[in-house]
Amino acid sequence: MKNSIKEVAIVGAGLVGSGWAIVFSRAAINVKIFDKEKKLRNTVLDTIKSQLIQLHSKGLINNIDKTLERISIHDDLNEAIKDADYIQESVFELKEAKIEISRAISQSLNDKAIVGSSTSGIPASEFTENIKNKEKFLVVHPVNPPYLAQIVEIVPSPWTSDETVDLAIDIMNKIGQSPIHIRKELEGFVLNRLQGVLLREAWALYEEGYASLEDIDKTVSKGLGLRWSFMGPFETIDLNAPGGIKDYAERLGDLYFTIQSSRKNSTKWSPELIDKVEAERRLSLSKDKLAERRNWRDLSLMDLMAHKKKIEG
Amino acid sequence: MKNSIKEVAIVGAGLVGSGWAIVFSRAAINVKIFDKEKKLRNTVLDTIKSQLIQLHSKGLINNIDKTLERISIHDDLNEAIKDADYIQESVFELKEAKIEISRAISQSLNDKAIVGSSTSGIPASEFTENIKNKEKFLVVHPVNPPYLAQIVEIVPSPWTSDETVDLAIDIMNKIGQSPIHIRKELEGFVLNRLQGVLLREAWALYEEGYASLEDIDKTVSKGLGLRWSFMGPFETIDLNAPGGIKDYAERLGDLYFTIQSSRKNSTKWSPELIDKVEAERRLSLSKDKLAERRNWRDLSLMDLMAHKKKIEG
Repeated sequence: MKNSIKEVAIVGAGLVGSGWAIVFSRAAINVKIFDKEKKLRNTVLDTIKSQLIQLHSKGLINNIDKTLERISIHDDLNEAIKDADYIQESVFELKEAKIEISRAISQSLNDKAIVGSSTSGIPASEFTENIKNKEKFLVVHPVNPPYLAQIVEIVPSPWTSDETVDLAIDIMNKIGQSPIHIRKELEGFVLNRLQGVLLREAWALYEEGYASLEDIDKTVSKGLGLRWSFMGPFETIDLNAPGGIKDYAERLGDLYFTIQSSRKNSTKWSPELIDKVEAERRLSLSKDKLAERRNWRDLSLMDLMAHKKKIEG
Repeated sequence: MKNSIKEVAIVGAGLVGSGWAIVFSRAAINVKIFDKEKKLRNTVLDTIKSQLIQLHSKGLINNIDKTLERISIHDDLNEAIKDADYIQESVFELKEAKIEISRAISQSLNDKAIVGSSTSGIPASEFTENIKNKEKFLVVHPVNPPYLAQIVEIVPSPWTSDETVDLAIDIMNKIGQSPIHIRKELEGFVLNRLQGVLLREAWALYEEGYASLEDIDKTVSKGLGLRWSFMGPFETIDLNAPGGIKDYAERLGDLYFTIQSSRKNSTKWSPELIDKVEAERRLSLSKDKLAERRNWRDLSLMDLMAHKKKIEG
């Protein structure tokens, strides 16, 4: 079974689901997409096609038509998932919606299939406790869009079986994603926790008047983020002291302890602070330019991935 | 004066100082390097030349010989700095060393010159309080190597004059760096604080058994770090909700508050944890491969900067 993933089902045809369809289809796997909303079923292939055209223009996909041909749209959940080797659930990010769809999926699940949820924040234990086959469900959380960012967080619930975890990791490796195995559930998983602590400090530094939003952004986009686009924080510090990571920790541990000790109180971002941030940010980018800038971001990410593909092979 | 920076002095010819020499010289500015150690004076031009050869091979510098010709080496501090428009001090990262050299520099300073220190962690107030011309001293902290990473933290002491700050920012802009203005002194400045909070969370997640070092690294190098190599954390979230940053903060503020609230205690990295991290890291990269991997990092960074130059112009 491990070596023969031929068909997957995508449940939920929104932005995340349609992104997943591209990831599986470009790996030569047949994709059946289910969505209960007619409007999404009618538009999802156009959405996918326009993404494929962009990817093709950046050399990130070989054949638009063949990739599209492997994708079909379905209005019947059972039909979409009954023969699938793997099901990627990507419905709306709401606990009740996850509970409902997981129960429905569990009714049609074939023996070999497992179910990964795209949820970015709800642990699988919160929506799979009372369904049959619950050992076959887990979180398989992508970064958006998954056809550009390879990372996928694999987070089992307490009752997810080891076989399910192994199979999910195996499938993700096979389709060219980078699965990371998170051994137990936690709030925000790993990726959003790392983003969260950086955001917390960035907001606090701004609130306390140390620097402008734009300047804080630049310390990342023209500083920290450069190396982080090809190596992680541990490797970065391992290479940043003559004797490696232990040497680094012994040299700089005190400084970092001082830094963390200076920020102990947890505070929510206040409405006043949010308004201030919004106002300053809108000076850099007016609201009517958001869509255009999002397109710039997507093209920049494609350019970066094309570059990385060339360099890393 | 603002429009005529023709000569700078680099005080301290180590890795940071030699990197600065490249930054100024490639901007067509004459560079006088002083170091009190004969050995460094004898080797620094070779160090610089080998870096220039690498940069040239990646299309990041036009002319090796002309860049080298603008750099001269001096064993007399006064001779090196007496005609300089700007002095970049890059001596050993020790408060006493900074105090001593700042006092010596202040003796030879001409009227127009200001002095930026490359220190990554010592606020200027700690080494300039008792010298004359102390209003002309401030921190100008680069990321290493400065000829690849553009970001420079400009951090005034309480007695640095506004003119000095403006001039330092102006000079950095002129030579193609990206100055960020930090309005008041703080431990770790901005860049290392942002790195510090991310490291803290990464170490804690590893200590608590949530994921391997390699997997935590991947969430950055194949996830968060991709966008961060061309846009900062504020712009990232501004583009990540339909209505912009305020919309994002209102949707996700509670999640991030929960995350920060779950990590309240400050703890040093214990010797046992450091040993465990070191042992796991050495499984990924043995100690005798550190130098080779550092070279890979430098070349990867050059490739990335060449890519960014092509894309961003």
